[in-house]
Amino acid sequence: MVAGNGPDGGEPDLEDTVALLGRTPGALDALLRGLPEACTSRNEGENTWSAFEVVAHLIHGERTDWIPRAKIVLQFGESRAFEPFDREGLAREVEGKSLGQLLEEFARLRSENLDELRALNLKPEDFGRRGRHPALGVVTLSQLLATWAVHDLTHLHQISRILAHPYREAVGPWSAYLGVLQCEGHSSP
Amino acid sequence: MVAGNGPDGGEPDLEDTVALLGRTPGALDALLRGLPEACTSRNEGENTWSAFEVVAHLIHGERTDWIPRAKIVLQFGESRAFEPFDREGLAREVEGKSLGQLLEEFARLRSENLDELRALNLKPEDFGRRGRHPALGVVTLSQLLATWAVHDLTHLHQISRILAHPYREAVGPWSAYLGVLQCEGHSSP
Repeated sequence: MVAGNGPDGGEPDLEDTVALLGRTPGALDALLRGLPEACTSRNEGENTWSAFEVVAHLIHGERTDWIPRAKIVLQFGESRAFEPFDREGLAREVEGKSLGQLLEEFARLRSENLDELRALNLKPEDFGRRGRHPALGVVTLSQLLATWAVHDLTHLHQISRILAHPYREAVGPWSAYLGVLQCEGHSSP
Repeated sequence: MVAGNGPDGGEPDLEDTVALLGRTPGALDALLRGLPEACTSRNEGENTWSAFEVVAHLIHGERTDWIPRAKIVLQFGESRAFEPFDREGLAREVEGKSLGQLLEEFARLRSENLDELRALNLKPEDFGRRGRHPALGVVTLSQLLATWAVHDLTHLHQISRILAHPYREAVGPWSAYLGVLQCEGHSSP
């Protein structure tokens, strides 16, 4: 990722990334709010998440992952590794909440975090600043911000698969034409 | 797919399917409208579609595929095969149009088609009625309606992949954790 405007078709720039990050809450709200609960509470089998749980996971990331890690890079560089991200942390986000409440919480936290990102007033030279991931080793601020957006897209990709999952048999012979039914996830979950 | 309410976790019913179909236009609008043009006009390489082209393809399906085929099943049964779907037909939908115009057109056509579906006033026994697909052979109305919804989800899955595509290098070592970057599409395109 580069700091300024990239050429069309080239590497994405910060403006593209912020634009994507800003749209995810609205897209998930439009997709999921008001669906029958059976659709949003179904998962893909043992040890997989429902759409509801994915939204809770995204909330947990907003609280503990992206902006907190960006601040660690800027403040400590490689000298302090990030806290490992708790993939089970979503359990604390869901207690007593409806899907509508989670969608609103995600939208609010994302908006606040994009305000924080702007307030960091990053300069072109900041994008190459290095931090330390507890498992992956040295990473840059630029890689962290790109990953934030692609993490959203990974979960949108996952939610489309979760929602399609109960239709595996129902589509009959069309199954072969429907890529989302062939997807086994590429990563866990 | 069954006609009435299925048990939670069971096979999806018509209500679930109509709910999903009704949400796709809003979800794509929230995701794509106003993104930098570079994001929505990029594709994944030769002979692949951009997000813009996927929306045009969905419009073409609304005009020529789902409801027209449902009517052929109800009127002609297996005696008349569907017209083959023209995967290149999207070219006729995009001429001179902006992405915003395509998103509005898709929303309008989808809404009209869901009105038509309701007006068909399908009875439980109608879901098993059989038609003839030009390549797949005998299919049922139930399979056709399920496929309509999963076709949307296949393209939402594809769009999340298209939007992530330019970030393949930018995410650095996080690539291994980001399932959408491992996805090669499962079907064409």
